Amino acid sequence: MRVYANFAATAPVRPTVLQAVTDVLSQSFGNPSDPGREGRAARDRLEESRWTIASLLQAEPGEILFTSGATESCNLALRGTACSGLITSPIEHPAVLHAAQSQKRHGLAVTFLPVTADGIVRIQGWNTASFPKTALCSVMTANNELGTIQPVREIGALCRQHGVLFHTDATQAAGRIPLSVKEIGADLLSFSAHKMGGPKGIGVLYRRRGVPLSPLFLGGAQEQGFRPGTENVAGAVGMAAAMQEACRQMEEENRRLSAMGDRLCRSLLTIEGAAVHAWSAPRLPGFLSVRFSGVRSARLVPMLDRMGITVSAGAACSAGNPRPSHVLRAIGLSEAEALETLRISLGYTTTEEDLAFLCQTLPLAVARARALT
Amino acid sequence: MRVYANFAATAPVRPTVLQAVTDVLSQSFGNPSDPGREGRAARDRLEESRWTIASLLQAEPGEILFTSGATESCNLALRGTACSGLITSPIEHPAVLHAAQSQKRHGLAVTFLPVTADGIVRIQGWNTASFPKTALCSVMTANNELGTIQPVREIGALCRQHGVLFHTDATQAAGRIPLSVKEIGADLLSFSAHKMGGPKGIGVLYRRRGVPLSPLFLGGAQEQGFRPGTENVAGAVGMAAAMQEACRQMEEENRRLSAMGDRLCRSLLTIEGAAVHAWSAPRLPGFLSVRFSGVRSARLVPMLDRMGITVSAGAACSAGNPRPSHVLRAIGLSEAEALETLRISLGYTTTEEDLAFLCQTLPLAVARARALT
Repeated sequence: MRVYANFAATAPVRPTVLQAVTDVLSQSFGNPSDPGREGRAARDRLEESRWTIASLLQAEPGEILFTSGATESCNLALRGTACSGLITSPIEHPAVLHAAQSQKRHGLAVTFLPVTADGIVRIQGWNTASFPKTALCSVMTANNELGTIQPVREIGALCRQHGVLFHTDATQAAGRIPLSVKEIGADLLSFSAHKMGGPKGIGVLYRRRGVPLSPLFLGGAQEQGFRPGTENVAGAVGMAAAMQEACRQMEEENRRLSAMGDRLCRSLLTIEGAAVHAWSAPRLPGFLSVRFSGVRSARLVPMLDRMGITVSAGAACSAGNPRPSHVLRAIGLSEAEALETLRISLGYTTTEEDLAFLCQTLPLAVARARALT
Repeated sequence: MRVYANFAATAPVRPTVLQAVTDVLSQSFGNPSDPGREGRAARDRLEESRWTIASLLQAEPGEILFTSGATESCNLALRGTACSGLITSPIEHPAVLHAAQSQKRHGLAVTFLPVTADGIVRIQGWNTASFPKTALCSVMTANNELGTIQPVREIGALCRQHGVLFHTDATQAAGRIPLSVKEIGADLLSFSAHKMGGPKGIGVLYRRRGVPLSPLFLGGAQEQGFRPGTENVAGAVGMAAAMQEACRQMEEENRRLSAMGDRLCRSLLTIEGAAVHAWSAPRLPGFLSVRFSGVRSARLVPMLDRMGITVSAGAACSAGNPRPSHVLRAIGLSEAEALETLRISLGYTTTEEDLAFLCQTLPLAVARARALT
C-alpha cells in the first residue's frame, strides 16, 4: 500500500491533462508566432486555454499571462510593478519573501502585516499613514504550510480604498477554492498548474487590464511583451484542462476532502501529545498541519515514507533545509515545536482506503519514533 | 500535400520525446524537492536528463541549469553576469539584442562586432583596447535567419586570451551541429528543446563551473538557486530525449539535409531574379535564405501556405512585424531586398517528396505572385 498525502507539494497529473498534453505535442507542434498553418493551430490551442483560465477566474483572456510557474509569476508581480513600498506578510512563500527581501536591499520600504496564532494575516491594524505613496500589497490566498485561507477579499477592498495595488499568490488556492479576481479585487494573481494536477513548468500571472508591469526579461513580443519566449502551448493546454476539471469537481471534492480531513484530525488528536495547528481557522479542505511532541518530523517523515506514506515536514522547496519553518515561527511556535510539525495534504486521488491507512499507520509511526528517541 | 519547411521556428515533437514526456507525466509526478518516494523518483529523472545533456555538450551535470527556454537562458546569461561591458553582434536574436539594449540604457557599454555580407561575425578587427575591464561577449553559434555558422571557437579563444566571459546563443545550433563547450571555450551557452523536436517551455543555460551568476528571480533553492521554481521534470526529460536523438542522427541527417538544401538551392536559382544569401558561408544543413526580386515575402508566404507549404518571412518571433529584419539589414541588404526574403529550413521529417514539392511549387508561387503585382 502506498498513500500520497503531499498534495500541497504537487499533485498527480490528471488523466485528462495527460491526454490534452499528448494531443498538443503530437498534433499542434507549431510555433504560435508563425503565421503558417501549424503556427495558427498552435496559437488557437494557446488562446483557447487562455480563454478557459480567464473565464474560471472571472477575468478577460487578455489579462492572463502565461509564465513558467508561480515562482516566476510572483517575481514578475513584485518586481514588475514599480512601487516604492511593499506590504506583505511573514507567512508568504519564499518566491514572494525572497523577492521582497531583495527589493528591500535595493531601497524598497517593506512592511510586514501581523499574523494571528491561527495563521491568519491581520488587517485590523492596517495603518495607511505609514505606507509609501505607491505601494503593492502581496498576501497569499491560502498558506502552503498551514492551509489557512486568508481574508483576501477584505485585503483587496482595503487596497482599493487606499490606492494600493494588490497581488495575491493563489498557488495553493487555485483549483481548491473558488477564485474570482473580481471578488478578491486583485490587480495581480499568481498560480501554477502542477498543484492542480497539471504539468510542471507552466503558470499564470493574472494582470488586471491597465496595471503597469515591466517584464523580468526581454526578447520577442509574446504575452504582450510581458513574458517573451516561445509559448509553452502543451503546458498551457494542460493547465487549462487541470483547472477546468478541478473547478468542475470542486464542490463535491471539497465536501469529501473536508470530511476526510476532519476524520483524520480527530484520529490524530487521540495520539498523546498531538496538536493540530490553525485548527479553528478557515483552511483548505484535506489540509492538516499537526505536531507530535517529542517527535522530530525529520525522523518521522522518512519513517512514514518507508511505511508507505508520503507526507511532508514543511514546504517542499525548503525540504532538506533543517531550519524551522518561518511560517510556523511566525504563528508563535517554538523552534522545537516547528521542527515537530508534519504537513498532511489530501487531494483528488485520496481514497477511503488511503484515509484508513493514514489513521492506522500514523499512531504506529509516532509510537515507533518515540520508542527510538 | 503539406510540407513543413520552417524548422528554424520550431520542429515537430519527436515520437521518442512524446513517449518520454508521457512516461514522466503519468509515472513520475513527484516534486523533485520532496524527499519522499515520489519526489526522489522525479529527482532521478531530472538528474538523468541533466547528465545526458551535460555529456552531449562535454560539460559536467552541475554546469547544466534548466530554464523555461532560450529567451530566459540568454537573459540570465546577459543580466546575471555583472559585467561593465558587452561585446555582441548586430545579428543576434532579440533575446540577446533587447537584453543588451536594456543594459545599455542602464549604463552598460555595448560594442557591436562587424558582420560580413555573408552573415559571419568578423573578429579580425577585435580591439581589446576599447573594451571595459569586465566584459561579456555574446555571439550566437548559428544565425536564426541565415543559418550561418559563426566562428565561435575563434571567438571563444580570443575571449579566454583577453579575460572576457563568452556566452553563445546556440538555439539554432543545438542538435544540428556538434556542440562542445570545451571546444567552443564557452563560459555560458543557451538553447531550448523545441527547435530539436523537444517540448516547448524548457531550455538550458550551460554555466561553466565557477562563473559568477545572479538569478533573474528568487524563491526556492532549485537549480543551485540560479533558477528557482518547481522543476519542469517532463520538459527536462523530453529535452534530453530530443537532444540525444538529434545528436545520434546528426551525421547522417546532415549529409541528407545538406544534399537536399543544395538541390533546393540550385532549383530556386533557376527562378529569374532569385538570390541566395550567405551562399558561400558555412551554414546549417537544409537552411536557406533566399529572395525573389519584386516579390514581397509578406505576399509569398501566405500564398505558399495556401498551396501547402510552410516557410517563413523571417524569424518566427518577429512574424507579423512588417519591419525589415535587422539581420538582413546588417549584412547590407536594402529594405526592399530584406522584405523580399524567404527563410526555408528543412529538418528531420523532411522527405524526398517534400523536397520535390518545394522545388515544383516555389517557382509557380513566385510566378503567380509576380503576375498579381
